[in-house]
Amino acid sequence: MVTEPRIGDVFGELLRDALAVATGVGPRPLAGGRLPRPVIEIIERDDGLINGAPAAHYLDGPESWQPYDHRAVDRVRGEVLDIGAGAGRIALLLQERSVPVTGLDISPGALAVARRRGVRDLVRATVDEHAGSGRRYDTFLLLGNNLGLIEGRHRAAQFLAALAAMARPGAQVIAHGTDPYGTSDPVHTSYHQRNRDRGRLGGQLRLRLRYRDLATGWFDYLVCSPEELAGLVHGTPWRLVDVDLADAPYYLATLRLAE
Amino acid sequence: MVTEPRIGDVFGELLRDALAVATGVGPRPLAGGRLPRPVIEIIERDDGLINGAPAAHYLDGPESWQPYDHRAVDRVRGEVLDIGAGAGRIALLLQERSVPVTGLDISPGALAVARRRGVRDLVRATVDEHAGSGRRYDTFLLLGNNLGLIEGRHRAAQFLAALAAMARPGAQVIAHGTDPYGTSDPVHTSYHQRNRDRGRLGGQLRLRLRYRDLATGWFDYLVCSPEELAGLVHGTPWRLVDVDLADAPYYLATLRLAE
Repeated sequence: MVTEPRIGDVFGELLRDALAVATGVGPRPLAGGRLPRPVIEIIERDDGLINGAPAAHYLDGPESWQPYDHRAVDRVRGEVLDIGAGAGRIALLLQERSVPVTGLDISPGALAVARRRGVRDLVRATVDEHAGSGRRYDTFLLLGNNLGLIEGRHRAAQFLAALAAMARPGAQVIAHGTDPYGTSDPVHTSYHQRNRDRGRLGGQLRLRLRYRDLATGWFDYLVCSPEELAGLVHGTPWRLVDVDLADAPYYLATLRLAE
Repeated sequence: MVTEPRIGDVFGELLRDALAVATGVGPRPLAGGRLPRPVIEIIERDDGLINGAPAAHYLDGPESWQPYDHRAVDRVRGEVLDIGAGAGRIALLLQERSVPVTGLDISPGALAVARRRGVRDLVRATVDEHAGSGRRYDTFLLLGNNLGLIEGRHRAAQFLAALAAMARPGAQVIAHGTDPYGTSDPVHTSYHQRNRDRGRLGGQLRLRLRYRDLATGWFDYLVCSPEELAGLVHGTPWRLVDVDLADAPYYLATLRLAE
């Protein structure tokens, strides 16, 4: 009899362990109770695909970042909401630069890690919940591929409306995305087709995260082309004003609040 | 709708990709079609636990081995059967030392990788199948925790009988195991209890391996204490003559064919 994993704070638990490995403080994952093992984030897709990826990068300092992360933080102005702040790598750099930044995440464990690493202004909420707080921002960051949080056609409009409710005049969204359609790998191209056959966007991934005995519920995470993004932004309070393709298939999309 | 993964040669596929990463030859796994990603072996346990571990170690040369692996290969004599030979790291060292060695594995992909790395004598079979070949050996190696292949009470007797059928007089088995009972981690202690409640040995793991879109079927893999091993060997053609505990909780068990 195979038991389903428990639903829990996967991301928080794995960041806590990744911090313990990085700092040498606190219990660390061991193989057979003795040999250190790296913290691996496991991502399942609803077609049976599974991938593991080392979690250490969530704690990386700017010297290890990809070039698009640097270009993204160089574009911020005013007060910043870092959405899906995770272990706080982006917020920490902004704080160093004396940029006012709020880190937003739904994972209590991730917020605890970000706090221990020195991020000062942290909020546990979804963007919809935080939109009711009365806080206002000039820049919304969706880095670490977090453009995916717009999920799909229906949710994208709600998500962008929540950001607009927190936006000062002239506000911008800087979002990191990946164009999924350059691949010829049949594992991915057939998944894109399966999604389209069901009325979904090709790269509308249905995922869950797993770590040790924990899993998240299944959730949508959107990997879309800049053209698809343009379509999703159309009719919202935002305009797509720039797509930086210097590191294609990764890109940085900039949205500006319509006047 | 969540689809179950396809059953396939998980271990072979991941070793093929690990070899491509190590040598730079052949298609390598990429994130988003561009950034290299390490090959991660994913192991699911039937209680919902999941772990990812980098696969690169399967190709490690002796300079990166754990000390017990060195002590194990220093104990071989005569003709050697390397059971669960994988990518061939043990067989390659023995060949260098001019020790006659056969690599046995059930994974076609693993055998292809071992062949490309230079292992000369390779057989695709279970120990039961190979026992019918007429080949005879002086040393049977179960390294890389492959003592686990004895599975549990019932299979252990069959497995050891198959080895005895291939054994020359005075033959030995050198097996690497891990004592699972030193941990106080409730994820593991409660699993051991769940197994015992079902009449299984505490560390009788029920596992499947996953890599990308592939999974193995569920199989038993035994992690047992030296005391449990002694009980399993009792009544077989073998005697447990030595347990090397220098790297506890890992150990090397030596069995000798009874006269």
